[in-house]
Amino acid sequence: MTDSRLLLGPGPSNPYPEVMEALGRPVLGHLDPEFLAVFDETCERLRRAFQTANALTLPVSGTGSAGMEACLVNLLEPGDAAIVGVNGVFGGRLAEIATRCGATVIRVEAPWGRPIDPDDLLAAQRRAPGARLVATVHAETSTGVENPLAPLAALADTDTLLVVDAVTSLGGIPLDVDSWRIDACYSGTQKCLGVPPGLAPVTFSARAAERIRTRATPPQSWYLDLGLVGAYQSERRYHHTLPISMIYALHAGLGVLLDEGLDAAWARHRAAAERLYAALPSLGFEFLVDESHRLPELTTAFLPPGLDDAVARSRLLDDHGIEVGGGLGEFAGRLWRIGLMGHNARPEVVDRLVEAIRTLI
Amino acid sequence: MTDSRLLLGPGPSNPYPEVMEALGRPVLGHLDPEFLAVFDETCERLRRAFQTANALTLPVSGTGSAGMEACLVNLLEPGDAAIVGVNGVFGGRLAEIATRCGATVIRVEAPWGRPIDPDDLLAAQRRAPGARLVATVHAETSTGVENPLAPLAALADTDTLLVVDAVTSLGGIPLDVDSWRIDACYSGTQKCLGVPPGLAPVTFSARAAERIRTRATPPQSWYLDLGLVGAYQSERRYHHTLPISMIYALHAGLGVLLDEGLDAAWARHRAAAERLYAALPSLGFEFLVDESHRLPELTTAFLPPGLDDAVARSRLLDDHGIEVGGGLGEFAGRLWRIGLMGHNARPEVVDRLVEAIRTLI
Repeated sequence: MTDSRLLLGPGPSNPYPEVMEALGRPVLGHLDPEFLAVFDETCERLRRAFQTANALTLPVSGTGSAGMEACLVNLLEPGDAAIVGVNGVFGGRLAEIATRCGATVIRVEAPWGRPIDPDDLLAAQRRAPGARLVATVHAETSTGVENPLAPLAALADTDTLLVVDAVTSLGGIPLDVDSWRIDACYSGTQKCLGVPPGLAPVTFSARAAERIRTRATPPQSWYLDLGLVGAYQSERRYHHTLPISMIYALHAGLGVLLDEGLDAAWARHRAAAERLYAALPSLGFEFLVDESHRLPELTTAFLPPGLDDAVARSRLLDDHGIEVGGGLGEFAGRLWRIGLMGHNARPEVVDRLVEAIRTLI
Repeated sequence: MTDSRLLLGPGPSNPYPEVMEALGRPVLGHLDPEFLAVFDETCERLRRAFQTANALTLPVSGTGSAGMEACLVNLLEPGDAAIVGVNGVFGGRLAEIATRCGATVIRVEAPWGRPIDPDDLLAAQRRAPGARLVATVHAETSTGVENPLAPLAALADTDTLLVVDAVTSLGGIPLDVDSWRIDACYSGTQKCLGVPPGLAPVTFSARAAERIRTRATPPQSWYLDLGLVGAYQSERRYHHTLPISMIYALHAGLGVLLDEGLDAAWARHRAAAERLYAALPSLGFEFLVDESHRLPELTTAFLPPGLDDAVARSRLLDDHGIEVGGGLGEFAGRLWRIGLMGHNARPEVVDRLVEAIRTLI
């Protein structure tokens, strides 16, 4: 068993030391008053991280994709129209899950590596004003693109809900659920929050929660039914046994984030990325994404000519203990996805990576 | 923050020390060869615990109820008939989830506290020979009843699949997936396996896996789609980021179980239960379940006259650091559910509980 790895792929990232300590705390029952206090504080910390006052804010008991599914199965019913922004794997996954909910999916696409123009999403909604929701990805983990969200606040003046994938953005770049008038937002723990994978924080606006209450049919998932999960949060009504240890870990990770402060954490991610941006061209890498839409927490760069993807990633892992991610889809074998997330968004981490890459070329 | 609790409710139980140690191991990526080796070994250990050779055997990334949902959403399609045994909360949950899958549910009931006669399930299948599946609970956590399963092996000679809830049985009482010809079986980690909550081991027979492959429609859940999750297991195709730390914990818990041996673990659960059975009547408790169907890992007993449920459970928790479970449904306030599961199935644990109860009466 290896001692440790430096996890600089698209996630998981290395957890904060405080998080690993919290994981080992004695297990409590899911109805124990001491656990409920930790759970409530975790939800309150999530509200601060999401920048929201939403009552229905909690960690779903699954990984980030379970958060995606939770948002869609609770808000969609068969026959609804769903407008989905697709410019990478995770936009495609939103469309796939919406289809499985029985929705008619209207895709709004942009090429991989380019952002989705928010005006295109708004125009699609004007053409389909009865659409139940617009769903889009904030930080597209497959390409390293940030999709601009703020203009989509205009949807709050329509009957269409705004659903945002913040799996790779929460804690890493500015995300302001209430100011941006987001109706449903989900994230994952293993990216910029610096917590192992296993939970999916979600938050729902009052009108999204009202939508859940007034559905004609129950959500097709019982496990992810937020009417039932929410009753555990608000009334302690038993639904399922929560993943206690993972909630301790999330509680601790959010504590680290909020002690540092959101602004400081974003600035730290930005500074680490700029250090990497400064080094990569000199190593022969070329960026996929224009700087204006490049995610600081996840950099995508084409390999220098002559550097073989599989060989180089194996050597990084085996000789240097560093994991980076490969490209997906059309970029497979051609680019790397380099994550500087959570605890790893530090200059010394960047320097260790750059030194290691230098030995390969 | 409390130092520790003795968790003697219906779960979670206290994890084995080896499990808590494993939780703290450094996080690896979900495609790291070292992690994949741990994952594969976890699946192999699950096969030994389930007593099966089923290839499709793995931990689903959610708690036990996610395992229940995974079995039903993968095997059922809208319009299918599902025969469900109901004699407690978890049988009722099976019926509810099957309904949300669009199935027509045929309920076969028994009173809470009594087992379901397997002949009743077989007779229901003979009346509805086209039923897609029969689903029943092995160890009904809401009442402490063991439902006999072995006669249901006859279903393997029909077109109807046998689905078994083994959340509270795996590791605690004999369960033999292959000999009993079970087609789909799910469990949870936080009961007799002595692991924190967060994963749902599942196993599918060859004919159940074939059923998944030949569905007319994709499962309504993308997250729990075992065609996709299975492709990660067999071909390393990315589906979702696995809960790495929890898989370490499960790997370690199964190691403890298999090192001890299934027979020895079952005997240990039985011996702890008999020690409790010997003590409870002298404390004024009366058993709900006839001894022939009483679960050793979960004892249900009516409180002595004059002992107030809420007051007594609070004192147990606050003064003695011991959690026991209250009754559900018609038994709320009237009986306790006392779990002796996994690491807690030990005589000294029973003695500590009995001494604590003695101070209350």
